[in-house]
Amino acid sequence: MVDQRGDQPRAVILLSGGLDSATVLALARHQGYQVHAMSFLYGQRHAHELDCARALANQFGVVAHRVVTIDLTVFGGSALTGATAVPKDRDVEQGSDIPVTYVPARNTIFLSFGLAWAEVLGARDVFIGVNALDYSGYPDCRPAYLEAYEKMANLATRRAVEGETLTLHAPLLHCSKADIIRQGLALGVDYGQTSSCYDPGPSGEPCGHCDACQLRQRGFSQLGLRDPLIERFSHD
Amino acid sequence: MVDQRGDQPRAVILLSGGLDSATVLALARHQGYQVHAMSFLYGQRHAHELDCARALANQFGVVAHRVVTIDLTVFGGSALTGATAVPKDRDVEQGSDIPVTYVPARNTIFLSFGLAWAEVLGARDVFIGVNALDYSGYPDCRPAYLEAYEKMANLATRRAVEGETLTLHAPLLHCSKADIIRQGLALGVDYGQTSSCYDPGPSGEPCGHCDACQLRQRGFSQLGLRDPLIERFSHD
Repeated sequence: MVDQRGDQPRAVILLSGGLDSATVLALARHQGYQVHAMSFLYGQRHAHELDCARALANQFGVVAHRVVTIDLTVFGGSALTGATAVPKDRDVEQGSDIPVTYVPARNTIFLSFGLAWAEVLGARDVFIGVNALDYSGYPDCRPAYLEAYEKMANLATRRAVEGETLTLHAPLLHCSKADIIRQGLALGVDYGQTSSCYDPGPSGEPCGHCDACQLRQRGFSQLGLRDPLIERFSHD
Repeated sequence: MVDQRGDQPRAVILLSGGLDSATVLALARHQGYQVHAMSFLYGQRHAHELDCARALANQFGVVAHRVVTIDLTVFGGSALTGATAVPKDRDVEQGSDIPVTYVPARNTIFLSFGLAWAEVLGARDVFIGVNALDYSGYPDCRPAYLEAYEKMANLATRRAVEGETLTLHAPLLHCSKADIIRQGLALGVDYGQTSSCYDPGPSGEPCGHCDACQLRQRGFSQLGLRDPLIERFSHD
């Protein structure tokens, strides 16, 4: 059997193991990319998501999956990595305050690792699952930020100097959580194998009350569906 | 005694321990910044430079010095981190080829960590010792790259959203190596405590033949000086 993948373009995907990046992975595979998935162990409370990332990478047949260890905790400054409590039962409709779960420059750091790998691989495409609707409070989820990042990336590397352009794809940028789930289900994503919670229990069970859990539940509700992750833990 | 430093603005400085970043450190202290120095252990052959960074940080009275471990070797792709030989006795005047010592997206990754720390510290200034003359072959040492990075950084963070601007300083960008050395000597930099060599011996002795050694030696020669680092090892 001939490996057909030699003809497919390579892409680097930032894969957290959450609902959004799982959907991006499915989209990129559907679009015919040879996917090189990159995850980060950055001192997050919710490191369980990396098990989900591994399962997803396996399910969607990525060419390679790298988990990069980054010590963001030396900076402090976020409820996702520090000692601050994750806020629960906030009104997620509320608006544009930047939540304490924002991690300073996180996407900038992650994208920079993705850029390095893309250069080494000769990949012209980098995918990230950011979303400007649900995470309007995060500065590094805004369209203007992503445009500026892409522009910088196209000056940063050897391949840029040689005239090749890199495209930063954020296919979920303007989608609602319900839209994202609908797309992913159509492409075979098992959302029972994803993790969104900022403060999960020891086996990865979602708390149900943090912003990420609320947004996720609202997305499934709007589609008239139950979250398979909730189903999974109610059966365990 | 009152600590006068409370009135001084904070700055993050990327401090490799090389000649250029040592000079930037001296300049920033001279300009009255409270310096927070950041170095990286990234699988470089020349990790000896980190000892120099520590000595310089101490000498110039930085507020804090963090050494961040980054595993760039997972990407391969550079003579500075991989198994490829460091080129010796190249004609460094030669022009704009990108040397094999270029590390993919290195400055982008380093600056991203600096940006994260600046945000946590409330620092509006980040300093980097890049040079567009001697390192014209490195894409991420070009003025257009730095401008694009600064623009992106000013969209990336919570403080950017709140209207504060971050300035990326590259005070050596257009200086010759001789200019840099002259400035540093006037500010008390002991270049015997810096390391530039890409392939030093076990005690940090410079090879004398890599691009970095050649550029450095030419800088001292143009000033009619001997490099104190060479003096130091000739006396050992």
